[in-house]
This record gives sequence, structure tokens and C-alpha cells, in this order.
Amino acid sequence: MLRLRRHHYPDHHRRILLRLFHHSTFHPQPLDLPLCHPTYQIWSANTSLGKTLVSAGLSSSFLLSPASSANKKFVYLKPIQTGYPHDSDSRFLFTKLPSLSLRRKFPSSLILSNSILFSSLFAAKSFLSSRDLPFQPEKFNSEMYDLNFREENRISGEEDSSVSELVCKTLFAWEEAVSPHLAAERESGGVVGDSKVIETLGKCLRDGLESEIERGKREILCIVETAGGVASPGPSGSLQCDLPFRLPGILVGDGRLGGISGTISAYESLKLRGYDVVAVVFEDHGLVNEVPLMSYLRNRVPVLVLPPLPQDSSNDLMEWFDESHNVFDSLKNIMLLAYSERIQRLCDMPKRAGELFWWPFTQHKLVPEEAVTVIDSRCGENFSVYQDQKNKFIGQQFDACASWWTQGPDATLQIELARDMGYTAARFGHVMFPENVYEPALECAELLLQGVGKGWASRAYFSDNGSTAIEIALKMAFRKFSFDHDVLVDFLGKDTTEKCVELKVLALKGSYHGDTLGAMEAQAPSPYTGFLQQPWYSGRGLFLDPPTVFMYNSKWILSLPELLYSEIVEHKDIMVRHCSTVVHAAGGMHMVDPLFQRILVKECQNHKIPVIFDEVFTGFWRLGVETTADLLGCVPDIACYGKLLTGGVIPLAATLATNAVFDSFVGDSKLKALLHGHSYSAHALGCAAAAKSIKWFKDPQTNHNIIPERRILREFCIAKVDINHCTPIYVVKNLVHAATLVDDKLWDLDLIQQISSHRTVQRVVALGTLCAIELQAAGCNAGYGSLYAASLLKKLREDGVYMRPLGNVIYLMCGPCSSPEVCSQLLLKLYQRLEEFDKVEEKLKSC
Amino acid sequence: MLRLRRHHYPDHHRRILLRLFHHSTFHPQPLDLPLCHPTYQIWSANTSLGKTLVSAGLSSSFLLSPASSANKKFVYLKPIQTGYPHDSDSRFLFTKLPSLSLRRKFPSSLILSNSILFSSLFAAKSFLSSRDLPFQPEKFNSEMYDLNFREENRISGEEDSSVSELVCKTLFAWEEAVSPHLAAERESGGVVGDSKVIETLGKCLRDGLESEIERGKREILCIVETAGGVASPGPSGSLQCDLPFRLPGILVGDGRLGGISGTISAYESLKLRGYDVVAVVFEDHGLVNEVPLMSYLRNRVPVLVLPPLPQDSSNDLMEWFDESHNVFDSLKNIMLLAYSERIQRLCDMPKRAGELFWWPFTQHKLVPEEAVTVIDSRCGENFSVYQDQKNKFIGQQFDACASWWTQGPDATLQIELARDMGYTAARFGHVMFPENVYEPALECAELLLQGVGKGWASRAYFSDNGSTAIEIALKMAFRKFSFDHDVLVDFLGKDTTEKCVELKVLALKGSYHGDTLGAMEAQAPSPYTGFLQQPWYSGRGLFLDPPTVFMYNSKWILSLPELLYSEIVEHKDIMVRHCSTVVHAAGGMHMVDPLFQRILVKECQNHKIPVIFDEVFTGFWRLGVETTADLLGCVPDIACYGKLLTGGVIPLAATLATNAVFDSFVGDSKLKALLHGHSYSAHALGCAAAAKSIKWFKDPQTNHNIIPERRILREFCIAKVDINHCTPIYVVKNLVHAATLVDDKLWDLDLIQQISSHRTVQRVVALGTLCAIELQAAGCNAGYGSLYAASLLKKLREDGVYMRPLGNVIYLMCGPCSSPEVCSQLLLKLYQRLEEFDKVEEKLKSC
Repeated sequence: MLRLRRHHYPDHHRRILLRLFHHSTFHPQPLDLPLCHPTYQIWSANTSLGKTLVSAGLSSSFLLSPASSANKKFVYLKPIQTGYPHDSDSRFLFTKLPSLSLRRKFPSSLILSNSILFSSLFAAKSFLSSRDLPFQPEKFNSEMYDLNFREENRISGEEDSSVSELVCKTLFAWEEAVSPHLAAERESGGVVGDSKVIETLGKCLRDGLESEIERGKREILCIVETAGGVASPGPSGSLQCDLPFRLPGILVGDGRLGGISGTISAYESLKLRGYDVVAVVFEDHGLVNEVPLMSYLRNRVPVLVLPPLPQDSSNDLMEWFDESHNVFDSLKNIMLLAYSERIQRLCDMPKRAGELFWWPFTQHKLVPEEAVTVIDSRCGENFSVYQDQKNKFIGQQFDACASWWTQGPDATLQIELARDMGYTAARFGHVMFPENVYEPALECAELLLQGVGKGWASRAYFSDNGSTAIEIALKMAFRKFSFDHDVLVDFLGKDTTEKCVELKVLALKGSYHGDTLGAMEAQAPSPYTGFLQQPWYSGRGLFLDPPTVFMYNSKWILSLPELLYSEIVEHKDIMVRHCSTVVHAAGGMHMVDPLFQRILVKECQNHKIPVIFDEVFTGFWRLGVETTADLLGCVPDIACYGKLLTGGVIPLAATLATNAVFDSFVGDSKLKALLHGHSYSAHALGCAAAAKSIKWFKDPQTNHNIIPERRILREFCIAKVDINHCTPIYVVKNLVHAATLVDDKLWDLDLIQQISSHRTVQRVVALGTLCAIELQAAGCNAGYGSLYAASLLKKLREDGVYMRPLGNVIYLMCGPCSSPEVCSQLLLKLYQRLEEFDKVEEKLKSC
Repeated sequence: MLRLRRHHYPDHHRRILLRLFHHSTFHPQPLDLPLCHPTYQIWSANTSLGKTLVSAGLSSSFLLSPASSANKKFVYLKPIQTGYPHDSDSRFLFTKLPSLSLRRKFPSSLILSNSILFSSLFAAKSFLSSRDLPFQPEKFNSEMYDLNFREENRISGEEDSSVSELVCKTLFAWEEAVSPHLAAERESGGVVGDSKVIETLGKCLRDGLESEIERGKREILCIVETAGGVASPGPSGSLQCDLPFRLPGILVGDGRLGGISGTISAYESLKLRGYDVVAVVFEDHGLVNEVPLMSYLRNRVPVLVLPPLPQDSSNDLMEWFDESHNVFDSLKNIMLLAYSERIQRLCDMPKRAGELFWWPFTQHKLVPEEAVTVIDSRCGENFSVYQDQKNKFIGQQFDACASWWTQGPDATLQIELARDMGYTAARFGHVMFPENVYEPALECAELLLQGVGKGWASRAYFSDNGSTAIEIALKMAFRKFSFDHDVLVDFLGKDTTEKCVELKVLALKGSYHGDTLGAMEAQAPSPYTGFLQQPWYSGRGLFLDPPTVFMYNSKWILSLPELLYSEIVEHKDIMVRHCSTVVHAAGGMHMVDPLFQRILVKECQNHKIPVIFDEVFTGFWRLGVETTADLLGCVPDIACYGKLLTGGVIPLAATLATNAVFDSFVGDSKLKALLHGHSYSAHALGCAAAAKSIKWFKDPQTNHNIIPERRILREFCIAKVDINHCTPIYVVKNLVHAATLVDDKLWDLDLIQQISSHRTVQRVVALGTLCAIELQAAGCNAGYGSLYAASLLKKLREDGVYMRPLGNVIYLMCGPCSSPEVCSQLLLKLYQRLEEFDKVEEKLKSC
């Protein structure tokens, strides 16, 4: 969460803050959920199946259990209520529990309250007149009436020393007894946004918690009761199960004829949204629906059956509650047990992880148990992280490493992908690829060749990850080169095991193409390639030092290697400086001058050297364009894709090639074919995810960042560069020019410039979805092995930003659909923490 | 499908056939579906939402449309009917259509029929007495009464030259108006199995089709109407949506309050089972439910609204059908269009695939369009393949290449995995692994270390496929070796880019460990490693010639390399012969003598040479045990897993290691850590699939092949070998001995012996889920590039067996849960085709 301390801010920040607040209302943070006591969501397979009876039964079982030593609190929240005030589920609990308490001869005292926070105007007037309360027009805003009514009751027990409490709250209410989206549309004069509901619910969940914790141990059980069925729309029209709560759930099923189907389907809709259901409960209608339900659930989720309700609607249900008592006791116990097991597991996870996992790129000795992040779930761009500090809770962290460069989905795409993954696994599982065709693979190949491969690629070769895509690309390029240069005069007449010539790659220093040996051979020596890591590495390439571009001190810098430096003079808009001759930090997010790249490509192609674009990282809008071919103004012979290809849900890679490359493998013998493949080549799930994501990212209906007519993301710089001009100066000049033109940017130019001028910062590259920052560092603080940024990133995690360093280079990464407002929030938080970091570093130096 | 020609069989086959038929009733083939006309399944979100009204409306729109030139046929099938004979949906159509025909002044003649095939005894008696028909006890078998009643009607039109036809059929009926599983249990004296329903439905779908096709163009529309809701149980208790039909569907939704949720959930249950839904239709209840439904469906699936039904239940609905006419016309048109688009796409797919795909391991020149397999879906072990021969249909082929060695799921596990994939994508998508923990990754690691790694492994390193798992294993082994042998005296004092020593692997000739360069360097020279394929390959190993074991002419053969041969004498039970010195065909399914392996492992470990088990292919029950460590009687330092790890749904690999291996990477610097990783390391979907599959395969509740007390699959040989004895003779003797002991085997020993004695066969290895057969071949017919087996495999595809050769080696592969009966069917089909193949080859030779 953003913790702003306004009074600390100098003037030039205030402007930014104001803008941020203006925007931030449209992008609510997902819910922070307290975990210090169990909280459950009550779902239902349909309307009128008795959710509120279940809530009431639970409250009775929890509060009035004779075995309990009282001092308990049951919190019942009804976020959405229609038919109000005639129907009020929170009032049902509030009025039933006293009777039940008397009937059960509950010895302790019981305090009860019932509140209603907001209602539509109609519901408010109706409610107020029914209670002879005055209507206060000032409590009405454009959406809802701020009713904020509370009623109380107290039952004094024999043992007045211990007091139990029932807290009931209705959050939003409408008068008409229809679906909330209809009631809201008709009565509220406008919808009540999801953010408002989430925010209010979050407040209610946290309400009084601090004092509870201070007060010491009081057992609490909290219930959030939904409205209608699991997929019934809420007031905004969003389906209730689509709101990002992810509380564990109880499903109230349907015991009637047809109820098995409805219950199973409702259960599946919840699972398809990542919800856990700890029990199913339903009213008995004599059809033994529990048998097929238990069979379906393989006894992993308990199914409980409530006695039939009396037919007479005037019945006060006291006898029914008596009869149901055991069932509710069981249900309550299941819920309490599931909660404690969950907490135990979450607590144990860091230790278990440290014992069993072997994390890649990780020195385990440097990761103490408390540094391990426990991810309870992901929702769109955010991790839900289990935290056990002063009190236990699930907090939200923006995944600013975009889960290691793969992520694209917003919360909506994630749910779409989940359904597609379910469908594709059911329809295809995996089927082998060679000589076969199936819809997901074909659609994916079509979209690749019409999209990133448009205008040059004719064939799609599938594999599993960037490394394998690169190894395949190398094999293609070797063959094509051999073919073009008569290295192989007669393919089949020759002993193919004999080495004909020594083939090398031409590559850039500082580049990184994956971790398998073949991919590593194509990169220059680095910390990854030494004997310690890769004894078989020899570096089979000619590695060039490229010019790079970045921002420093609010200005664009073109950093040139020595060879090029002599030709360049200073320009008023751009600083040009000598390129560091130090080997680039691997994966250091260096932006290579596109002009240099283009000239290199043309030269290679002139010499019939096949050109491979490694777009594993850069493809699919990562840099603001679908393919970097659009940035460079030239096309390759072969290109590799991975990571964002599937929207970041599942591994899949593709190597695209021209027909000319393909033709060098065509012949009469299988031995001439490309004999490289993986069992899951073109696996259906990956292809289906890719097909959905490729379409989603470029559709302005689903990705508001797309400027369709220009096939670019709204972002701040390079897209407008006229790459047909030939001097590097011009390129960079245009970068600067473009930056001032685009209004609605992913990365706010003001903030980027400020950060680039910060004394802790050496270099900024912000392009597309990436904003990389190299911190000023020297000695062992610089380079890949450096831990220099650790303290800074720890602070940012407290702010809800999950980043991961590459030595002294840190970066923020968002998805192609991320909102510019969220990006600005991230930059701002980063800037604040840089200020702090600076002060600490200064202090350290002065000591 | 099995096409048995009994009269061709010599005596020794008949015995096997009889056994086969005895078993085969328990293992029905999935449905072959005709595609020469549209067939749709009508689903419903709940009972009583008007499925039959929709069917009737469609029949009227299709048959009685004035624009049509008649000569049409509408087939209505109701597989499951309860409440019979009072409720009969097929009779509803049969009786309504004449009235509608008269009302619409349909000019042509109309022939109508209504049949009921099977019913419970109660339903039969009730039906027969209502019609004054005699009860014939002989028509009653243990399950159902073979009613086979048919009624007809004919409406003569003005234009009698053209005749349209309505065919209505109820397949199975019960008297009580409850869920079919209850009715069946109470009335049938036993359940009606899914196989019976599938078989009967298949027969009805194909009924009269041949003559229709001969008769020429008659437009046909076929409707299969389900009972109750989408997930309502059928008579066997299986959910209706779990039966493997995969017909495209129409969903009848719910227009009432709460109906949005029920409709969306029902839709999702269908998608989660791989069903396509082409339209949603529901009765209007004034709640505008279509708006949220269309929004949810993103306008990709049309939503149609029917006018409200009259409240009066005695209403004849004629006016309602008039009012609904346009809606049904639209619905019918949507269905016809979706059908023709689907057929067009299926027809185009081979051509598109040949143009856009670059299949791995495939010489495209050798794959003409007609050789491309169009896979419409997969259900458990079977491909559903689109075929366009005399007539279009979806046929079933057993995936005997187990989709390239990855597959494990039966149809039930596939649906469980689909739900898990949906849940995991929704809950986690992908979250980066290093320094994090989340439930699927942790559970997967726990299961790996308690399972295949039990007793030796302490750490799980995740990657994406077998190749990367091997590259990681090599890096681990290199470090461990360097550590143990003081190759690196001081890790951090040294220049790590400097090459210290030349490290090599010790490996077996004929082995194959993946396609990336590092993995390839660990294999002996082969067609895969030559300059043509892999110019950078040098073969960095010492490659040994191992002894191998196989069956030939009903006897076990131990084939020894020269060095070992001298020590061995003949034994009465076993033939021992000289090992071929020719390099093994790569991937030729050679079984290496386990004793040799074990001695090699011990020797390496004695010399502190780290041992890697490549279990990518062999792990997870592929060879009848969870890990081959159980076969060899020794454990590795490092082992690699992939393929079956996830149950075959998605790529994931794991490299397990001992703590001693892990410790050689622990230190103060990140640069000492293992700097190898992939973005999707331990991706949540893969880990969730693995966790489910690992548990599923070893649970006797879900895998009937497991003999839990012995931790083996029931299979025919090596499991009983006492590997602690030291002579190879003894090992093989035990193989033979064990083969005679286990009764219920995956691969029938009689059949295996017969095949091994067949004159076309050189070698058989049947172990666990694998049965490999090397065909006798010489010259260019032998080896990986050979096309020798092509004609044989083509014939087997006609039999519904999808195999893929490795040159002249062919194999049948099933899953850990496959039934022995299915395996026997496969062997039998193979044997038959070998007989044919032999004759053709003989003929060729004699020419």
C-alpha cells in the first residue's frame, strides 16, 4: 500500500502527487485480507438456497456453543443486499440470535449490533420512513446515500463476566428485489464501482482489528455472504466471483431435482477463479444428492446435509435450528480446522522451501527464511503475499519483475486464460505434433505469422523455452549458411559426422540468449559462462561492442564504443560519451542503438549471413511494439519468441523462419530434416494461451494501451523515431522529441527525468513496459553479483512493489495492458525510496 | 474400431480372442461420430428450462420452413428419459409437429416416427398396459426391457413429390420422474453402463446413414437432448457432461432471477470438459439476463431470447411457437453456419498445416497433405481424428505413441487435470520462482522427493523439458566433480572464465538425452549429431557399449558386447549372443542389462564420479516402477524427470540432487550459485499437474494397475528380478521366471511371445507401459531414416491405432492406468497386421 507522507514533499513532488490521487481512484488496490482469524465467503449455487440460514446457523454454533468459554466475536458482512429494507440478511441474524440464545440457555452475555452503511435513495427513504427517521439530503452523493445506521441489543447472561458479540453489517443496499446490477442501474443513478465495494469490504474486515489484537485473545469468526449465485453480477455488473477476494469459501448447494448439476457447476465456476471451497452444504429434499456430490468431489471436500425446512413460511425456524445444530457444529469445526491448517502451512512454507527447493540464479546462503516470499495467489499484476508481522495478513505486491519477464495478463485476461486452459486440457490434453494438426497449434501459427512474423516469416517451429528456441534458430542458421556458401556440396554423399568448417556466430557483447550450452556459446564471456558455471563453454562467436542509449540527468546519452566515437561530435540536445570498455553486466538491460542494429543486419544479409532476432524478451509489446522489427526497420531470417508469447501463463517458444531457411532442410531423406524437437512441441495449452494473448494484447477493446492505427503501445519514446535517417544523433534527437509528444504514457516523462537526475542513478532506460535503472555503484557494489540494491528493494516491498535486481541494475516491469496510472504510482514509490536510500548511503559513507 | 474376422483365425488365436471379447465389454471404445450433417447436443443449465421446446422449435424451423424445398430429415434423440411414459420428450415432438405443420400450411408431405428402444421393467409395464400391448418376459435382460416400440404418422401435403421426415427416438427410459441415476438404481436392478449408452447412441447416430448417402443429398439435422442439467448424473452415475461425446452444443439457459449465475456456471462446466457451445438460448422472464450473459461471452457466442411461455399449463403452445419462430430460425441458422464453418476448417487444416508448420523430426517432403492427421480432440488415451473418406466422420485412434512418451491420463484424470489447470491459472497464473514459495511448487517438490527421489534426493531444481533438466544435471555433476577432485581449489580467488580441465561424461552408446547442445554432447555420435544437424557437436564423452536384453522367438536374449561375451556361457533358459557392434539406432528402445548399469553406477561412485540417471523417459511408471532406481537397486547423485511428470499435459522438468551436490554450490557469492534458469521455472500449472498426476498414478483407488504393496504396475517381467544376484544369466533367468507368475499383465505374455516369434520381428522389449518391436530389416530399410514400417503403420491407423516409428523400430505405448484388455487388443491388431505385412513383403521379394 501507498503510504504517502505529504508534508515531507518538496514542491516539485506535490504536482505529481496530485495527479496521482486524481487518477488513483480508478485503479483500486486489490484487497488486503486479515488472516489473524478465519474469514469465509458464503457462496450459493442459486438464489434462495439458504445462505443466510447457514450464516445464522454458524453464528449460533460459534457463539452459543455451551462448551465454549464465550468471549467470542462473530462478524457477519453482507456486502450487497437487494430488496431492502424488507429483505435484510444481516437483520435476520441480528433478530434470530437472541431467540436462539434464550432457547439454548446461553450462560454468558451477548452483545449484538446491526449496521447498514450505504443504500440507494429509494432504499434509504423506505428504511428511514419505516423507522421514523429524518431524511438528510446532505448524506446523498451521486451514487448512494450514506445511511450509516446502527442498532444494538444486549442479552444479559448469568455469567456476565464473559461477553460474546455478534456484529452484523450490510454494506450496500437497494430496494428492488432483483439482481444487484439491475437494482443499482435503476436506483443508484449510476453503478457502484467494484473499487468502492472492495474498499468498503476491506475496511469492514479490518475494522476494530488493531484493538482486538491489543485486547488479546478473543476468538473471531468472520463471514462474508454473497448475493444470489456464484456468478451473479454485482452492482457494477462484474460477476461476484470475479471480484478479487479469494477468501476460502463455503458453497451452499442445491438439494432439489437438478440440484446436483447446479451445485457442481457452481463449484467449478469458483475453482475456475482460483477459489478454495472447504465444504458444501445443502438442504435435504429427499433426493440423496450428497452421494453423487461426494463422488464428484472424491471425498476431498466434505458435503453436509441440513434437515428439510418447514413448508410454513411463518415458522420461526427455532426447531429447525435445533435439528440442524449438529450439522452447523460440524461445518464450523471444518472451517476452523481448515483455517488453522492453512495458517500452519503458510507459516511452514518458507522453511520447507528453503529445505527442498533449489532456486535458479540463487545463492541459497544469502536467502534466510524470513526473506522468502510466500505467494498465496496472483491476481492480474499483483501477488497476494502472506505476511506475518504484527499480525497475519495477505497483502498485495505489484509484480514489478513481471514474474521474470513473462507476464502480460491483467485480472480479466487471467480469468479468460484460466477458462481456456481448462477447456484446452479437457479437449486436447497434449497430442504429439509431428505430422499432425489441431486447432490451437494451427491458430497459434497463423497468428504468429500474421503478427510478429508478418512480411517475412513463413514457418513456425515450436519448442518449450527461449533457450531451445535459440538452439533451434542456430541449427537453422548453420544449415542455411552451409547451404548458401556451399559448405555442404552434397548432403547425403558426405559423412555427416565429419566436421566441415568451424561455424561461429556474430553477436553483441552483453547479450544473453539462454542457459543451455548452445545458447550460451552464442554469448560473450560473462559471469554465467566461466568454468565455475559452464565448463564446456568456449564462446563460439565474434562479439561486438555496440553503442547504447540511455537517459541520465534528464538527457539522452548515446554511449559509443571507441571505434565509433571518433566520428561523432556533440549535439546540443544529446550528450555523447565514450562507451565503457568494461564488459556489460549480463542482463543489465542495455538498450542498443537501433540504427547500429539495422546497419549490422543489412551488412550480414548482404554477405548471406542469416540473421537471428532473439525476441524472447523483447517480443509481444515488451518494448511498446509487437516486434522489434518495427523498431529497427529491418527483418531477420529467423526469430525466436517465448516468455510473453503465452501471456505469461505457461512455457512455450517459437522459432519463426523464412521459406528460404526452411528450404535448406527439404530433401528426400529424413536425415536432412531438422532433427530437433521436444515432446511437448506445440503443446495445446501453450498454443491456446498464446492465441488468446496475442489477440488480446493487440485488440484496443481489451488492451486500452494500444494505439491501433500506429500498432504501438502508448509509451514515451522510441516509437516515433524515424529510423530511416542515418546519423545516430538524429535517432536520439527523435527519441527526445517523441517523448514530449505522447500525452498518455506508460512511464511518466517528468518522473523518469527526475529519476534520471537523481544522484543515486547512473542510467535510465524506459521503453514500452520496461523501466530499468542502473544505480551509481563502484567496486564490489557494481556488477551482477552485487547486493547493493537489496536494502532499497526491501523497502519497496513494504510499499507493495515486488522488484528483483540484476546486481546494481533494478527495473520496473509492467504488462502490455497495465494502466499508466499504476506505472506512475510505481515510479513515485521508487523515487521516494531512492531519496531514503541516498540518505542512508550518504550516512554510511560519512561513517 | 476392432474389426475381427473370426473365420480367419487359427486355433491359437481363438483362445485369445475369446478372452478379449470377455473383457472388452468393460472397455467400450469412445464414440465414432458422423460429420456428414450437423449433430448438436442440447444442454441445459437446470431441469425444466425448456430443452424439449427448443428441440421442437428447431425441428419445426428446420422441417417446416416455407422457403425450403423439403426433402429434409430431422433426427431427435433422447438418450435418457425419466418419468416415462407420462413424460416423453420424443413423443412431444412427434405429437406437436403435425399440428405445427398444419398451422404453417406446410406444402410437402411429412413422415413422422417415434421409437422407444429400452426401458426399465416398470416403465415397460406401464407403457405396454397403457397401449394394451402384451408384456413379453423374454425381452427382459438383467438391465433393461428391450421395448423396441415404434409409432408412425404421415401428413400428406399438397406437393407430395417432396417428403420431409421427423425421426424421434428415446433410447433408455425409466418410470420415476427423478434423476436417471436414482431411477436406474431403483428400477433397473442394476445400472445401465456408460458403454451401453454410448454404443446405443452411436448406433442411432449412424442408423440409416449409408443409405442416406447413397440416396443423395438430403439435408439432415440431428439433435441429441440431454436430461436435466449439464452435470446431472446419467443412469450409471457418471455426469452427463463427462461422457465422451464432444458434440457441439446448444445451452438452454435460465432467464429467471439467479439464472445468470446458473447459465454461466453450466457454460463453464461444459468448457471444462472440452465442449464447444455455439449458442445460448433462454425463456424471457423480464430480467434482461441476456445483457450480462452477452457481456460475459464477449459477444463470441450468440445469446437468443425466447418469448415468455403461457402460464396456463393446458395451453397447446401453438401461439408461443408462432411467436418464437424467428428465434428458432436464427438459432437453426447459427447451428448450420457453425457446422459448415467447422467442416470447412477441418478440411482446410492439413493444407494449412503443411504450409505453416515446421514439424520437428519431420522431412516435410515425405508428408503429403493426405498423410496429415487432423486431431479434433483427445479423450483419455484416444485421439478423435477427423476423417474424410467415403463420408466425413470423427474416428477414434488409440494414441500408441502416447503422444511421444508423455501421456498418462485416462479420461477421468484428464478432466481432473483440466479443472486443476483452470484453478491454478486463475489462482497463480505464473509467479517467478527464485526466493519465492507457492503451494503447487512446494507440493510438487515434496512429492518428488518423497517419491522418485526417496532415500537419496534432497533438492528439486525445476526447468522446462528433458534437455534443460539434463543440462542442469551436467552443470551440477561438473561442479560436484570439480569440488571432490580439487579442480577448483579456491572458487573465488580464481578467474572463473579460465578453463581448468577438460571434463567429459561417461555414457552409453545408443543413449539419447535431448536436443540442446549440452545434452547432445553427452551422447555418442549418431544421425542426430553430425555436422548436418549439429555443427557444434564434438561428443564430449567416453561412450560404452552396453549389454542389452530382449525377446526373440519367445526366448529372452542377452546381447553382449565383445568384451563381456568371453565370460558368459550358454544357459538352458536363455540364449546369449554376441552384441551387434553397429551403433544402436538412436532412440531404438534398447533395454540395457540392469546388472551392467548397477555395476557401472557403483564403480563411478567408488571413484567419486557423480552419477546422473536420465529418467526423463523412464520415470513415473513408464517401465512399471515409479523410478528405475527400483529396477537397478542403486541410487544416483542426480536424476532428471520430465514427460510423464505432469501426467502428460504440459511441459515441466525436474532435476533432483543429493545434498552433497547442492552443497558444492553454497557459498558467500551469488557467482558460486547455479546460474541456470528459465523464466517459467516451477511454473504453477506444471507443478499442479505434476502433483495431481504423481498422486493419481500411485493410488490404487485411481490407478487399478497399481499393486500397492509392491509399488509396481502389474506388468510382465522385470519387477520380480532379484537384482542383488551377480550373474547376468541370473537376471535374465528371473525375467523369464517372473513373466510366468504375474496373472493380470499389461502386455499379454502369450501374445508377446507370438509376436517375438513372428518372422517379420527381430526383437521385442515389453516392459511397463512400453512394448517395442524391431522389424527384421536390412540395408536402407534399417536405421532411423528408414521408412520401412510406413505401410504397416498406415494399416494400423485404419484399425484405430496411432503409432509412429523410429525407423524400423515400432512401439506400442500405453499409460500407467491403461487397462490390460486395451493393451491386448492393441497387440492383437498389431499381430494381424504383421501377418499381412509379411505377405506383402514376401510378394515384393518374389517380384
